[in-house]
Amino acid sequence: MKITILGNNSAIPAHGRNPSAQIVEIKDLLLLIDCGEGTQMQMIKYGIKRSKIRYILISHLHGDHYFGLIGLINSFGLLGRTDPLHIYCPELLPAIIQAQLDASSAHLPYELHFHTISDAGARTILVDNNVFKISCFPVEHRIATHGFVITEKAKARKLDIEACRKYEIPQYFYKRLQAGDDYEQKDGTLIPNESVTLPGPGDKVYAYCADTRYTLSFVEDVRGADLIYHESTYLDADVDLAILRYHTTAVQAAELAQAADAKRLMLGHYSSRYKEIEAFEAEAKRVFPNTVASFEGLEIHV
Amino acid sequence: MKITILGNNSAIPAHGRNPSAQIVEIKDLLLLIDCGEGTQMQMIKYGIKRSKIRYILISHLHGDHYFGLIGLINSFGLLGRTDPLHIYCPELLPAIIQAQLDASSAHLPYELHFHTISDAGARTILVDNNVFKISCFPVEHRIATHGFVITEKAKARKLDIEACRKYEIPQYFYKRLQAGDDYEQKDGTLIPNESVTLPGPGDKVYAYCADTRYTLSFVEDVRGADLIYHESTYLDADVDLAILRYHTTAVQAAELAQAADAKRLMLGHYSSRYKEIEAFEAEAKRVFPNTVASFEGLEIHV
Repeated sequence: MKITILGNNSAIPAHGRNPSAQIVEIKDLLLLIDCGEGTQMQMIKYGIKRSKIRYILISHLHGDHYFGLIGLINSFGLLGRTDPLHIYCPELLPAIIQAQLDASSAHLPYELHFHTISDAGARTILVDNNVFKISCFPVEHRIATHGFVITEKAKARKLDIEACRKYEIPQYFYKRLQAGDDYEQKDGTLIPNESVTLPGPGDKVYAYCADTRYTLSFVEDVRGADLIYHESTYLDADVDLAILRYHTTAVQAAELAQAADAKRLMLGHYSSRYKEIEAFEAEAKRVFPNTVASFEGLEIHV
Repeated sequence: MKITILGNNSAIPAHGRNPSAQIVEIKDLLLLIDCGEGTQMQMIKYGIKRSKIRYILISHLHGDHYFGLIGLINSFGLLGRTDPLHIYCPELLPAIIQAQLDASSAHLPYELHFHTISDAGARTILVDNNVFKISCFPVEHRIATHGFVITEKAKARKLDIEACRKYEIPQYFYKRLQAGDDYEQKDGTLIPNESVTLPGPGDKVYAYCADTRYTLSFVEDVRGADLIYHESTYLDADVDLAILRYHTTAVQAAELAQAADAKRLMLGHYSSRYKEIEAFEAEAKRVFPNTVASFEGLEIHV
């Protein structure tokens, strides 16, 4: 799994920094998380193969996280895309996009599927296949906002031998359990794979914590992640602004990463009040040493 | 009057070219014509003082002409703008913008005024004050589209002496006529200034012909302009595409400029099928020598 940062500024573009957008590459497939204005230009700049994007996740409806989406959807049509596109997003977004498509009499040559996430706050599995899983969790911002956990599955799951014995699963079936299959007992009872296996040692977990105030309310959702992206809109000196505006400081992001027992932390979503961003990493590292401050064009392997 | 080109590509951003946007500077005031995605970033790049924009004109609702508008409106709010903003646009745009403001619970600290132009095709004066006048005219595109004529008024209007005598206007009033005042006859009848004066020799006229197929249907609207901007999406070899898609070639744009007796022609809105744009100017110049092919960052004085 590889993350590429296309934008890492908050609210308004400034100092050459663009609004939020990240590409997650898993095998030959791309996911886009958030899509601020200009994201399609950033994709060209950083050589992202737009046609390989199959899923787009929108965390919330502040403009710096989605104003570039209609342009991307429109360009996909003009570029002759035929592959379906799946968008996971807040409830109000489909109508906003549709109104703009209608106004231009656009006819998209591909299937556009919206999957809305409840504004009331959902913990849901959005996508689950043999290669990866995407789930969402609510964070705490001024408007309904969700973070996402993306898990690239290891090829083999780890057997929970005690559980296998408890359900009397024969040894010849162990290989299929490792491949992710469920087991059907003789009386027809289905034993879900997850009841008798654990994530394989190769599972890779990326947690995107979106825009949020500092809170441990979702720490269990992101526990043990190989990489946590957590917003850090402000430096410690401006913690009052962070509290007022439902955002987080770099130090608070580091505290969250520590509480979640994450392996690594990536910062981003810097306020345009800061021309330079070096201090973010320095402040966070005092609490959580394995921190990197994202910059545009950064590629980070999980 | 000064025009600054912020974007000149059609449909999708490509080859480092951005979608349509132009700044018109008159005295200390800025107008923005069209606002493709990324326009606010282009404004930063080219040192445009965003706070001085008072009017925005949107020609039509194809995305490459307005997808950047919501971002600009939103950023104006975040930057603490208090000056009113007036947007002249197609009928469907206010609802599209409002839905996005509502979704983010945005509260704008400035007055946002929409003035819609009838999709049925309007020839209307949009703004008329002592410094400049803006009017619109319908062009012929796939969806309702308008061009704009912006006239910077000369300080002194030219007296139509014959008309002045006909209405028996006393000579002492001539100075006020030159300043643009109307004359009230003794019986109360109002003689509109335009009935007894002509545009001063210093009037400057810029005509923006938006996206259109080749037609002379609006040639009278732009007749004699000091500068005509006319789209030239295609080169002559692709004239069939121009016809099919309700666009124009460089040669056709030149023919329009010639028919309108314009002083100068500026091309733009190049298809992304062309990596280089030199040929546009060369083709147009064969018909209309005083042609310039716009490029991003171009400043052109009228």
